[in-house]
Amino acid sequence: RDRVRDVVDGRRFQRLVIGVIVVNAIALGCETSPALVAAHGGVLGAVDRVALAVFVAELAARLYAHRLRFFRDPWNCFDFVVIGVSLLPAAGALSVIRSLRVLRALRLVSMVPSMRRVVTALVKSIPGLLSLSGLLVLMLYVGSVVAINLFRPSGDPRFGDLGSTLLTLFQITTGDGWSDVMRDLMVAQPLAWVFFLVYLLVGTFTMLNLFIAVVCGAMES
Amino acid sequence: RDRVRDVVDGRRFQRLVIGVIVVNAIALGCETSPALVAAHGGVLGAVDRVALAVFVAELAARLYAHRLRFFRDPWNCFDFVVIGVSLLPAAGALSVIRSLRVLRALRLVSMVPSMRRVVTALVKSIPGLLSLSGLLVLMLYVGSVVAINLFRPSGDPRFGDLGSTLLTLFQITTGDGWSDVMRDLMVAQPLAWVFFLVYLLVGTFTMLNLFIAVVCGAMES
Amino acid sequence: RDRVRDVVDGRRFQRLVIGVIVVNAIALGCETSPALVAAHGGVLGAVDRVALAVFVAELAARLYAHRLRFFRDPWNCFDFVVIGVSLLPAAGALSVIRSLRVLRALRLVSMVPSMRRVVTALVKSIPGLLSLSGLLVLMLYVGSVVAINLFRPSGDPRFGDLGSTLLTLFQITTGDGWSDVMRDLMVAQPLAWVFFLVYLLVGTFTMLNLFIAVVCGAMES
Amino acid sequence: RDRVRDVVDGRRFQRLVIGVIVVNAIALGCETSPALVAAHGGVLGAVDRVALAVFVAELAARLYAHRLRFFRDPWNCFDFVVIGVSLLPAAGALSVIRSLRVLRALRLVSMVPSMRRVVTALVKSIPGLLSLSGLLVLMLYVGSVVAINLFRPSGDPRFGDLGSTLLTLFQITTGDGWSDVMRDLMVAQPLAWVFFLVYLLVGTFTMLNLFIAVVCGAMES
Ligand code: NA
Ligand code: NA
Repeated sequence: RDRVRDVVDGRRFQRLVIGVIVVNAIALGCETSPALVAAHGGVLGAVDRVALAVFVAELAARLYAHRLRFFRDPWNCFDFVVIGVSLLPAAGALSVIRSLRVLRALRLVSMVPSMRRVVTALVKSIPGLLSLSGLLVLMLYVGSVVAINLFRPSGDPRFGDLGSTLLTLFQITTGDGWSDVMRDLMVAQPLAWVFFLVYLLVGTFTMLNLFIAVVCGAMES
Repeated sequence: RDRVRDVVDGRRFQRLVIGVIVVNAIALGCETSPALVAAHGGVLGAVDRVALAVFVAELAARLYAHRLRFFRDPWNCFDFVVIGVSLLPAAGALSVIRSLRVLRALRLVSMVPSMRRVVTALVKSIPGLLSLSGLLVLMLYVGSVVAINLFRPSGDPRFGDLGSTLLTLFQITTGDGWSDVMRDLMVAQPLAWVFFLVYLLVGTFTMLNLFIAVVCGAMES
Repeated sequence: RDRVRDVVDGRRFQRLVIGVIVVNAIALGCETSPALVAAHGGVLGAVDRVALAVFVAELAARLYAHRLRFFRDPWNCFDFVVIGVSLLPAAGALSVIRSLRVLRALRLVSMVPSMRRVVTALVKSIPGLLSLSGLLVLMLYVGSVVAINLFRPSGDPRFGDLGSTLLTLFQITTGDGWSDVMRDLMVAQPLAWVFFLVYLLVGTFTMLNLFIAVVCGAMES
Repeated sequence: RDRVRDVVDGRRFQRLVIGVIVVNAIALGCETSPALVAAHGGVLGAVDRVALAVFVAELAARLYAHRLRFFRDPWNCFDFVVIGVSLLPAAGALSVIRSLRVLRALRLVSMVPSMRRVVTALVKSIPGLLSLSGLLVLMLYVGSVVAINLFRPSGDPRFGDLGSTLLTLFQITTGDGWSDVMRDLMVAQPLAWVFFLVYLLVGTFTMLNLFIAVVCGAMES
């Protein structure tokens, strides 16, 4: 068991796995081209099956070596889920899952130490942002309920139901094409600009502070 | 009176109120769906009336417990206004007020301590920004008067009156579709780009400094 | 002469001038409404002439009080230019100058101390940005000469001459609708994306650093 | 050899070269105007040939003065490549290279010390960003393979092949017109918003952290 652990935690083994991940990612990219699939479909499918076999064997070896401590490291859980998803039968409605096979390429993050550090830092900055994110979600929800009540009578499909309205307000928060949405509404409701002005000012100000919270958190560490 | 104060300031009572706020917010969201209103309209209306009764009772209890010191805390004033708006008769032209009932969900901010802290920090950063905001408003006003004099002859409705022009310049400040506005004007007035270039450079530079003022203010505290 | 200086530098006098500036700015705003001009055109014109007379008298008094030291303060020069422009005859091709009369409202900045401080800080941050701004202008120029040579054959009017191309590349730098420009070009020149990708990456990276230079400069002071 | 070095490293010589660069850049700008080429084409071509001769002579002199140490300074290599490109025969498919002649104007950066410092600082900040940039490229690739599998059936040319999809996802990352792309897809695939929401949130958060990494790196130095 110790010998297995030395192997799976060794540099040479990790480089091999990184190589398989990269080759697999390229193969999945090539599979998006009908011409390449027609010409070399067999090779691409074989690469995918071999890569999956390597990943399963690797995970099994690491599980054997570290036993249940394996699951204490969140990166291992990440690897486990990503590979597990690939093993699901990809029939019918699950064809979406088949298109998620390429998420395996994200294992690169868990295998390359410098990327691992970067993502760990990203994830660690999340808890400090929960209050402000909650505030933004609350604003989005409250804004959407107000907006649908005000603007549904205009018949604009972007304010047709609560889901569409939430999506439209998210779009406005990102600043993409908000003036088109407003001008379309102002034909029927000339005062629509009041809502947009208030929402943009409050939303931008909150986002700015969310941003500053991230910066300050990063400066301290 | 002391016993009432212990109750209304206690954790259990506050959790109850938070629960009522969340349930009420969800009910108001459901009321935006005509299908749900048709099926469960009575329940949704009842939830709304019960929630409002709870809020009124809660405010009355807190007013009784704290007397006029109640109004010293701006959060209490916020609660008072939000609930007061809900009690206005929502007939005719006031249907807008009816659609503002969901603002009650913002009471979540005043009840959850971590959100309360975040918003307090947001609000405290405002005074330091007044000079720069005033500068931006002045720029918007001066820019609009210049723009309407220059561009109204082109017949573009976005520069039809001072209100529209203010809105258009606000849009340009946010950077959304400014080039479309400019290109439309340049058909009739080939030199329109001069105004846009100057306005964008000055405006972006000022906004950048507004942003830095917020960051620096946040760093100090 | 000392007595005049005490008066023009006194608080009461400055408040009077601020009041005249605000009233004048509002009157110039009202003049943009044909309905208001038709109804109260005489009053609005009179307000404008009286305000201009007040400003001229004020400047003359300050010039008399401070003699040529008056021009040592850049804010005084600013006031002098803004008022001087208003005295130019506004006939024919100079109607643009007439529409610039509202720039007088910017005198508010030179009269209100807190705004004056903010703008002074803005202006003082400019020298530290000259190198990076020069770099951006150089990039814009070089990028435009490359772009016009590559894309003029496609017949797109946005790349018709060097002026249009400079404007289009400025638009791309602000990120407004760059993908529309690119997709239009890619119909005739499928490799156009190479230029856009390089220009956006280099430009955004430079702007980011320009931004950081401003932030760092602000932090030191 | 020492005398040559004194000359080529002297201020007067460098000012001369800067002058030639500026004149050459202006001439290349003028060459974009068919009217100017028709009227003064001979002069413009002569300016270009003389400038190129000056640059070649200058580089030769500096190579002679510093021998192979010349290539130790990356700025010299930059000069060498830029001038070398101009000497390539510009026939047929190489007309693109001809349009790159204006890159010579970038030699201004290597000749003006303050710009040189700015660009050196920019370049030095790149290594610290490699991990985060790698993460963004990985996200772009994985996102594109997922997107093409999900959205190609809709027939949208923006998701027609892997190249187009990469470009479309880059566009979405910059936030330009992402809502148009999403709404077009949602006609056929109403759940397309899930992909856009996840991609925008993850992408924006990563970019924000990339930005912060640049700021923190700049603050330390
Ligand atoms: Na846009
Ligand atoms: Na935009």
